[in-house]
Amino acid sequence: MEPARVDPAGPEPGVLFLAELREQPDVLTRLAGREREFEAAAARLRRPEVRVVRIVGHGSSDNAGTYGTYAFGLIAGLTAFRDSIALPVYYGTALEAADSCVIALSQSGRTPDVVNYVERAQQAGAPTIAITNDPGSPLADAAEAVVALEAGEERAVAATKTYSAELAALALLAAHAAGRGPRYHEGLRETAQLLAEALPGLEAATAAAAQQLVDARRMLVLGRGPEYATAREVALKLLETAHLTAAPFTATDFGHGPVAVLEPGDPVWAIAVDDPSLPTVVEAIGRANAAGGAVVVTGSAANAIEGARISIPLPQAPLPWLGPLLSIIPGQLFAAALAGARGLDPDRPRGLAKVTVVP
Amino acid sequence: MEPARVDPAGPEPGVLFLAELREQPDVLTRLAGREREFEAAAARLRRPEVRVVRIVGHGSSDNAGTYGTYAFGLIAGLTAFRDSIALPVYYGTALEAADSCVIALSQSGRTPDVVNYVERAQQAGAPTIAITNDPGSPLADAAEAVVALEAGEERAVAATKTYSAELAALALLAAHAAGRGPRYHEGLRETAQLLAEALPGLEAATAAAAQQLVDARRMLVLGRGPEYATAREVALKLLETAHLTAAPFTATDFGHGPVAVLEPGDPVWAIAVDDPSLPTVVEAIGRANAAGGAVVVTGSAANAIEGARISIPLPQAPLPWLGPLLSIIPGQLFAAALAGARGLDPDRPRGLAKVTVVP
Repeated sequence: MEPARVDPAGPEPGVLFLAELREQPDVLTRLAGREREFEAAAARLRRPEVRVVRIVGHGSSDNAGTYGTYAFGLIAGLTAFRDSIALPVYYGTALEAADSCVIALSQSGRTPDVVNYVERAQQAGAPTIAITNDPGSPLADAAEAVVALEAGEERAVAATKTYSAELAALALLAAHAAGRGPRYHEGLRETAQLLAEALPGLEAATAAAAQQLVDARRMLVLGRGPEYATAREVALKLLETAHLTAAPFTATDFGHGPVAVLEPGDPVWAIAVDDPSLPTVVEAIGRANAAGGAVVVTGSAANAIEGARISIPLPQAPLPWLGPLLSIIPGQLFAAALAGARGLDPDRPRGLAKVTVVP
Repeated sequence: MEPARVDPAGPEPGVLFLAELREQPDVLTRLAGREREFEAAAARLRRPEVRVVRIVGHGSSDNAGTYGTYAFGLIAGLTAFRDSIALPVYYGTALEAADSCVIALSQSGRTPDVVNYVERAQQAGAPTIAITNDPGSPLADAAEAVVALEAGEERAVAATKTYSAELAALALLAAHAAGRGPRYHEGLRETAQLLAEALPGLEAATAAAAQQLVDARRMLVLGRGPEYATAREVALKLLETAHLTAAPFTATDFGHGPVAVLEPGDPVWAIAVDDPSLPTVVEAIGRANAAGGAVVVTGSAANAIEGARISIPLPQAPLPWLGPLLSIIPGQLFAAALAGARGLDPDRPRGLAKVTVVP
């Protein structure tokens, strides 16, 4: 256990983080209502010359980008990938513009190398779409089209509502690119409603889980397909807020090596949803159980998993591929609860500013 | 510290891992001599319709794929990305064949979903190249062209020589795609020679570092550009062999969140090389130092870094972008030494088989 670091004279720790976390149903509902804006922005993805979608971002926005690669593939049949920012920005390679649409994700819209990437893509003639919480930011200025997250100011350093808003924006852009916008706006509205109903129960369940795992020294986080994005974001949240070293793996990569690190009692966070990758996740959980790991399973298929130490089931999303909007929530709540149980303040991680300004 | 798990009646622990690690100069020299084979395989990358390179693999092979995205971008000006295996294999999305060349990496050539991915790509008409240590494997059978690593049998479960052989194969394919094959074969030969000369000193330096860090509870591993592949592979090696939970980050992402986790004395492994991303790495190391982290720096620019606890300098590679062939070595050696110092056997991680057979 680490020493408590809460300032007794300061505001109650974690208030911002938890308040913003709880705003997520409202944020998603607002996005669901902006059909015409998404339809207009997505026009760039429907240009016949666009064959690939290049997604860029850092930190939580990069994790949202992982979701984007699946959302574009599954909803729109488009090839999408998280492009290297370093190649054009630091190494000066040419950006292939003719067949690409660029989607840049940044909560602040001020991450310098993401802005630089978009400026280069614009100069090269690629259509660019900025997804940001600040439509007055340099990133919004640099891009051809802007999708404002309209999530309200995010004051806690660790992202919550802007992460899920980025996921929703990516799903909506993919849906409009595929001519299925209206259906996904409706599905997002229903997802937000499910989330609002589930939140109180999830807060209680994750608080209990945090009490059980307060002394954890490390955690492995497993997901597959779209939920690999969730695994990455849960691991980052645990590191940022609860100072727990957590490493994300796809369910398949877990069996390739990391399973060796498990000591009896070591916690494993697994996301299990009703989709075609479920057998790989079930297999990985079985190996974690065999090694004596303390498995925490969440997701719409959590109830179907045998042998988990802790089970935090979630409702099924009303449309395929919107599940990650639900399955990130227990991870965010658990990170907040674990930070609190360890005397840490998730609102103010040491050494962090809200905007990445490193070169 | 974890309890010793070495069987006193068994062979000396880590013998295989270290022996295979030391074979790397020979493995690279052999690859350097096979110019015609690489020229023939690379013909697929020069087809005019090929606009993107899709790279697939798991574990260490996926880490090599990260290097591949940079090698193709920097050496050949080609867009390359690590493609989702799950999308076509589990979710049934169509593989875009018309503009893609596929490169599949697997030491054993028997990882089922990688073989399945290549079969689908072949059916869709994409040119495919398998890079594998077993030219008689199902993966080699499935692909249009095969690059055999000829690294000799790899008996330790954690990959060493096949990882660096995969890097070299990717660099050579990129060089041939760019019409610069002969220069890179010569550069690889020189790199192998530099490595052979540096190995004894590196073994001593990493053994001393492992003694200093034997009680480490976690490690963050930093790299940028092509050396981000090294950061990923070092983290995996530490997890597999020394049971040290290690998380890789680009130098920029490190400042976005993970810096918050550092307690005074926490170890940070940083790869610093003389390339245009060096300022981002220097900045990240400065922040790690400010947080009281115990920084271990390696790479060709290690001597230029101030304030590191441990410095393990490396020679400059004779050609740009071959540096990762050198900078992985201290990480492999450190993982072996740390495992030994902790009484673990890097030849036999628990729960692991050499071939990934999970679905």
